[in-house]
Amino acid sequence: MRTERDVLERIERARRRGPKLRENRITAAHGAGGKATQTLIEAVFLDAFRNESLEPLGDAALLPLGTERLAMTTDSFVVSPLFFPGGDIGDLAVNGTVNDLAVAGASPAYLSCGFILEEGFEVSDLRRIVESMTRAAKRAGVTLVTGDTKVVGKGSGDGCYLNTTGIGTLPDGPELGVHKARPGDAVLVSGPIGEHGVTIMLARGELDIEAELESDTAALNGLCARLRAVPGLRAMRDATRGGVATVLNEVARAADVSVVVEENQVPVRDEVRGACELLGIDPLYVACEGRFVAIVDGAHAEQAVETLRADPLGEQAAVIGTVGEDPPGTVLLNTTFGGTRIADLLVGDPLPRIC
Amino acid sequence: MRTERDVLERIERARRRGPKLRENRITAAHGAGGKATQTLIEAVFLDAFRNESLEPLGDAALLPLGTERLAMTTDSFVVSPLFFPGGDIGDLAVNGTVNDLAVAGASPAYLSCGFILEEGFEVSDLRRIVESMTRAAKRAGVTLVTGDTKVVGKGSGDGCYLNTTGIGTLPDGPELGVHKARPGDAVLVSGPIGEHGVTIMLARGELDIEAELESDTAALNGLCARLRAVPGLRAMRDATRGGVATVLNEVARAADVSVVVEENQVPVRDEVRGACELLGIDPLYVACEGRFVAIVDGAHAEQAVETLRADPLGEQAAVIGTVGEDPPGTVLLNTTFGGTRIADLLVGDPLPRIC
Repeated sequence: MRTERDVLERIERARRRGPKLRENRITAAHGAGGKATQTLIEAVFLDAFRNESLEPLGDAALLPLGTERLAMTTDSFVVSPLFFPGGDIGDLAVNGTVNDLAVAGASPAYLSCGFILEEGFEVSDLRRIVESMTRAAKRAGVTLVTGDTKVVGKGSGDGCYLNTTGIGTLPDGPELGVHKARPGDAVLVSGPIGEHGVTIMLARGELDIEAELESDTAALNGLCARLRAVPGLRAMRDATRGGVATVLNEVARAADVSVVVEENQVPVRDEVRGACELLGIDPLYVACEGRFVAIVDGAHAEQAVETLRADPLGEQAAVIGTVGEDPPGTVLLNTTFGGTRIADLLVGDPLPRIC
Repeated sequence: MRTERDVLERIERARRRGPKLRENRITAAHGAGGKATQTLIEAVFLDAFRNESLEPLGDAALLPLGTERLAMTTDSFVVSPLFFPGGDIGDLAVNGTVNDLAVAGASPAYLSCGFILEEGFEVSDLRRIVESMTRAAKRAGVTLVTGDTKVVGKGSGDGCYLNTTGIGTLPDGPELGVHKARPGDAVLVSGPIGEHGVTIMLARGELDIEAELESDTAALNGLCARLRAVPGLRAMRDATRGGVATVLNEVARAADVSVVVEENQVPVRDEVRGACELLGIDPLYVACEGRFVAIVDGAHAEQAVETLRADPLGEQAAVIGTVGEDPPGTVLLNTTFGGTRIADLLVGDPLPRIC
């Protein structure tokens, strides 16, 4: 098992090797959550901002503040289109920030929101977004406490970009983190994967198919709180940009373990599978906005699945794999057809501006 | 003196009168910090997000969290150009968020930052911004603890937009707020005004003049902490979008008092005055990023000025006016030429994308 110190030392070694960013200009891949994003973060941001609180491997930073322990997380949202089946940029932003706190083991409390609006944006659309944020905040039990609005000229934005930043309290309990995974642990997902990403793509009209599909955007703080009560919980991670496969690669690298996934155990709706086949992409890399990956001591895997399934948001939760020793840092996929292949980080993402 | 309850009731009455936003589309004025921004906030955001913590009149929301009292604030930055004499979007963002916490009476502790990058943005420029943020955070004594990066396509952004959200602790002490102003109070500014706004405009090449001028961007938490020790301090407010005149209108409205400003007491550098004359704008409406307005019991005004002047960031602090009774809700300007005029909120702002 790696400690946080090991992780920080690894980053320090990477830093000493010097910046690895080869590109001179930002590309779409830098925002896609895959290998290119990771390189950008390590070569530019971690190097400069380097401090113990900056979460190299967490969804939220864990902070002492007075006598309390806080979690803090930030996310900007540039999803296109702004409105899609099952949600819009407003509830996506609220849920996304709530989830980053929840999977870090925190109880989300307060959210800020910053709007960057393009001149000419319809006020009625802004109202829809704001109302959707309000409903999502109410459902998640968080309060939107402070905001900011900026306007940029026509052609310098794309309607509406949003930032939501959230803070929450950290209840007492064992420390969670992907670096805590150890051989023998079970790998769970909280429900069927890839619905958000495929819904966005269909909403863009990029695929000439119709499907009864909605984004899975949802606040997971209730579900995460239930799972926190299960003994042997090591880590939770929401599977957004880069999907489940990207999360599992982070687990494998942070804990220096292997992760073995049984493809036929991964819950995927037929509509998602069908669309992914047409596009030649693997649902394991498609973003969810209401699902998370959990790593749990194998002895408690059954209890964890039952706990998740007792909640409507987790009713299709499943064990999809196990943590092993070799090869360390690697995700292996036992395919439905009987083969085994490496499921590495992608450089970019087949689906830009998914959140 | 108005209490917070009065303020909330006033908002409730405004809400019952129904939304007052007449435009169907967002215009530049909605982002300028003046009357149009205020209408947008009241008609769209306050109406939907309405809760006791949302700061109708503060720079930061004041929040209970466990046993602590926190302040939280958010700001997006879309300044153009990204680099200008005296600073760049990076230190502007850090200082701006630090200042919003500081003027609310809080001790800034942690910052998040969210980047929205346009495809094609130079990585070297990103590095400059990140390094500038790091230096500004160090100077201000705050830690950048969590971040996020999104990339949008060419033509859907303008290089780099930033969001910084900050949290800090609230030390014990008397409650501050612009609604606390009362007749007999003194109105102070912490230094010469308008330098940031004019610097940005000159950097855009919109004026065919050269001036030895730099943005006043600076972290004011040290200066604000000094002033908090002065008895009779009622409120502090940083004079960003909309400038000093906009802050004073907020004071007059929130406290239901008049504010009388002596134009010849307002510290303005010759270069700023000259540029403003050429543009036909009043320096009182031009954004600062390192100056604040303070309202102090008249009996302690001298001590307050001396306290500010003891710090290099406040060495040109001055009393610029007084709080009166009539006409309530109004800012009056006694001009250098002996006349008196009303200094109302502007609808928009002569200088878009100033921060």
